[in-house]
Amino acid sequence: MNAPPRLRESPSLVSGTQPLVDFRTEPSRYRHWRLSFDGAQALLLMDVAEDGGLRPGYKLKLNSYDLGVDIELHDAVQRIRFEHPEVRTVVLSSVKERIFCSGANIFMLGLSSHAWKVNFCKFTNETRNGMEDASRYSSPKFIAAVNGACAGGGYELALACDEIVLVDDRSSAVSLPEVPLLGVLPGTGGLTRITDKRKVRHDLADVFCTTTEGVRGQRAKDWRLVDDIAKPAVFQDKIRERAQELAMLSDRPADAAGIALPTIERRLDPDSIQYKHVQVQIDRDRRLLHLTVSAPQEIFDQSLEAILKAGAAWWPLQMARELDDAILHLRTNEPEIGVWLVHTQGDAKAVLAHDALLEKFANNWFVRETIGMIRRTFARLDVTSRTIFALIDASSCFVGTLFEVALAADRTYMLSGSADQSTSPRIELSNPNFGQFPMINGLTRLEQRFYRDEVAIALCRDALGQSLHASVAESLGLITAAPDELDWENEIRLAIEERTSLSPDALTGMEANLRFGVYETMETRVFGRLSAWQNWIFIRPNAVGDRGALKVYGKGDAASFDWQRV
Amino acid sequence: MNAPPRLRESPSLVSGTQPLVDFRTEPSRYRHWRLSFDGAQALLLMDVAEDGGLRPGYKLKLNSYDLGVDIELHDAVQRIRFEHPEVRTVVLSSVKERIFCSGANIFMLGLSSHAWKVNFCKFTNETRNGMEDASRYSSPKFIAAVNGACAGGGYELALACDEIVLVDDRSSAVSLPEVPLLGVLPGTGGLTRITDKRKVRHDLADVFCTTTEGVRGQRAKDWRLVDDIAKPAVFQDKIRERAQELAMLSDRPADAAGIALPTIERRLDPDSIQYKHVQVQIDRDRRLLHLTVSAPQEIFDQSLEAILKAGAAWWPLQMARELDDAILHLRTNEPEIGVWLVHTQGDAKAVLAHDALLEKFANNWFVRETIGMIRRTFARLDVTSRTIFALIDASSCFVGTLFEVALAADRTYMLSGSADQSTSPRIELSNPNFGQFPMINGLTRLEQRFYRDEVAIALCRDALGQSLHASVAESLGLITAAPDELDWENEIRLAIEERTSLSPDALTGMEANLRFGVYETMETRVFGRLSAWQNWIFIRPNAVGDRGALKVYGKGDAASFDWQRV
Repeated sequence: MNAPPRLRESPSLVSGTQPLVDFRTEPSRYRHWRLSFDGAQALLLMDVAEDGGLRPGYKLKLNSYDLGVDIELHDAVQRIRFEHPEVRTVVLSSVKERIFCSGANIFMLGLSSHAWKVNFCKFTNETRNGMEDASRYSSPKFIAAVNGACAGGGYELALACDEIVLVDDRSSAVSLPEVPLLGVLPGTGGLTRITDKRKVRHDLADVFCTTTEGVRGQRAKDWRLVDDIAKPAVFQDKIRERAQELAMLSDRPADAAGIALPTIERRLDPDSIQYKHVQVQIDRDRRLLHLTVSAPQEIFDQSLEAILKAGAAWWPLQMARELDDAILHLRTNEPEIGVWLVHTQGDAKAVLAHDALLEKFANNWFVRETIGMIRRTFARLDVTSRTIFALIDASSCFVGTLFEVALAADRTYMLSGSADQSTSPRIELSNPNFGQFPMINGLTRLEQRFYRDEVAIALCRDALGQSLHASVAESLGLITAAPDELDWENEIRLAIEERTSLSPDALTGMEANLRFGVYETMETRVFGRLSAWQNWIFIRPNAVGDRGALKVYGKGDAASFDWQRV
Repeated sequence: MNAPPRLRESPSLVSGTQPLVDFRTEPSRYRHWRLSFDGAQALLLMDVAEDGGLRPGYKLKLNSYDLGVDIELHDAVQRIRFEHPEVRTVVLSSVKERIFCSGANIFMLGLSSHAWKVNFCKFTNETRNGMEDASRYSSPKFIAAVNGACAGGGYELALACDEIVLVDDRSSAVSLPEVPLLGVLPGTGGLTRITDKRKVRHDLADVFCTTTEGVRGQRAKDWRLVDDIAKPAVFQDKIRERAQELAMLSDRPADAAGIALPTIERRLDPDSIQYKHVQVQIDRDRRLLHLTVSAPQEIFDQSLEAILKAGAAWWPLQMARELDDAILHLRTNEPEIGVWLVHTQGDAKAVLAHDALLEKFANNWFVRETIGMIRRTFARLDVTSRTIFALIDASSCFVGTLFEVALAADRTYMLSGSADQSTSPRIELSNPNFGQFPMINGLTRLEQRFYRDEVAIALCRDALGQSLHASVAESLGLITAAPDELDWENEIRLAIEERTSLSPDALTGMEANLRFGVYETMETRVFGRLSAWQNWIFIRPNAVGDRGALKVYGKGDAASFDWQRV
């Protein structure tokens, strides 16, 4: 079904030609994880294949990971959510002797380009946020059963779980040795979660984060680095006990049938990607692409039974999975395509009918998971380092759930036809815009847009169910500009030409700041604060210069630092 | 009085030998500002001397600024606070024809080292925060009377004011052209203040920040970029009217006599600085320094009259001014000294007596300003990119206000003598620790330390007025470690050796994250999010490479970008 991936230069891990990264996988193809089920408990065991690196040049020793390992972890969490609604606790542990996980593979990091490192960290952060999202919204709880050394990204993985139980065997420790060993930060949420989530006192955290050997046993518990410790003889009992207790916090159904997630089908051509509901057309000369999301082709049968029967083919889910795959693919494999022009097309009524279903059956586990999939997909868009312009013209269908994409855009242009023409573009809000898809700062995109101004939001609520012409949309503040037919083409063209001429780095920094004004949560702090510092460090000679700490690691040479504090 | 500043290589603006930066100035020495007073109104006029750059190699055209211009601005705000208690509004405007301020000098930025740029931005951010701190706590209000073009850092300066009035002359605009012109961010709070303070909608902000020509007239007001506009003929009337109205929000005394701020006296030797209450001893081989703050030498007369008579010589104020100058000097002129070991010495009773005065007379304008000076000095410590360890031994005096320095430290070591020895070190909390010196996130350092845990804070409150031995301090969570006499020397030495061996960049990023867990405000977002992104961009080839936007600006060459989005 898929066109063979082209080989091309960018975005290589090392310089040279590398195959495209494919984010689609399934348990039968896992090389690094073992996923098994026992009633309400899932067991997710890390068993990284040393020779299974996504790129050549490094071995994944000691349960260290690269992007390929994390793609499988992301897939496993998705499958637990959709295919195993009976699962109430996920025990995450390791098959390896005395090693839970030693974190991101350092040799991989040492070989990686700056862009690869940053993109790798973004995806791993999203995956860890995704575990917490699962716990928060759909309630399988996660326990890290730390049965051996747990270092760096390994501990960051444990931090993403609801509870951490550390084996008390006089040797197994949790540690964040990035600063002393590698001259970089524990950047996959580590620094943020030890403060924000675990409330480790900042001075103890300072000691912890500068200690290569980490902290074990009672001290790890006293410092709040783990929730509990257990001697090897009783470790399994303790995990079982905690799993049962956490399961009681979950409201997942015991007897629902899971929904299988088939491999997302797509046709990948050199300059286009075709999914069923999502199309991407790349214009390489102008370094932009058109991404079009289509409405459902018919108004779907309204019964819950029919929805469950449709399963992964249900439009809201299939659309979100396709859009998510497109975002991941483009982010990783098309770094030079800096402007994404987002379009929608199709029957507004069909979208709104599905929005009504999302609302009506929001308490059903599968509908809840589908809402979650859409929420995470839009959240991925929010932290994507590409300019996003939404273009609303006569063929558009920016209503309800699909209008959320326009709200996520940096700008929204809407063609202003005459108000009495039936062909003039319209937009429409639906209830899901007011709560079903919160950003990672916990706000709806309307709340974020209007900085929680209650008057502005109430005016939008009053417009619920109304098909809004550009002039009304503009006066409500829902769009950026409303050129008329005479100006439309020229104005869009100029805006795009201007945008694609600007420094990609400055745009990345600007968009990351403007999209997340005022309101912070642990998740926004991971992307906006921790990642920004890490990205800075990732390009400093002290880390990546010829004698930088990341480069010389494992080669027997000592790093050489410029001692200036900046 | 001062030893002649040594000439040495670092921290040069350009490579080569440069004199030290001196942050001490006074109005008679201003080259770039005119400060005048008319009753309750101060007029602060920008009139930058083209040839008055702090470093050679660039001209300060069009009211552009460098660090030297900002040092004067910082001084002016201090003098308004202390020397002119009658001032209720500060009108900030320009003497230049048709130019309010064109922002940070681009040629200066193009010539600067990475460290210089970062340090320059930190100080300018602190100065703008200081204007808002003045407005919030001691209530002179600021009006930006924007009487001409207001670009980049010029608009960021206006954003730090309480109100912005823009002349509506069909040409004067406000703009943030950093992204399109220079490939960097509006990093002196610009991106943060347009969202957090002014609540400019993110998509309009996106348009605004990518437009070199900016926005003027009614649109500037509609987009919330300015508070009001006024035609040239009525501009002065409008400013007068707004100044009078804002003055009514201020509670500053009409008839109090100001307190003169004499030049801070210090003796600067190659490896030491001596102030009256602050001493610095630099150990260059070990890249560390000892900073010692001394308690007052006697318990001060308790009357308000005596305090006002002492004025700038009053211990709390003089100590804070000296400490502030030391921080600024060391940050800018000693970038390789990465570890600051903080000591205190003297009579605990004298410090506590002053703390009681700070509390008793907190409503007096001068005491309020003194508290503010201490608050800002400690806040400067919080964002200083140096490791800070507080060392509490037998000669220490870490009580009350001085214990706040230990709370600001990354770690605190306290010698654990036997509890019954009168020479064992003690610490003591006083009321000011519970509210007088909030961090820039609005929390006390105790609230931050315990993540607002009410039980932990209540236990500290119960210990008010008690002289605490190390074991008690440790059990309350007030110190990091309490080695006994046998271990003390060795443990401190190892901690320091370990620290000075680590990557300076990784430490900067780690400390910036751990010191500011969980709680964010506009100010923390400026330092933690915006500055981190800016620092990343400041070192990217797209900005500072041979053909980077910052390097080629004004040379007629187009910038050349790597188009990869990261």
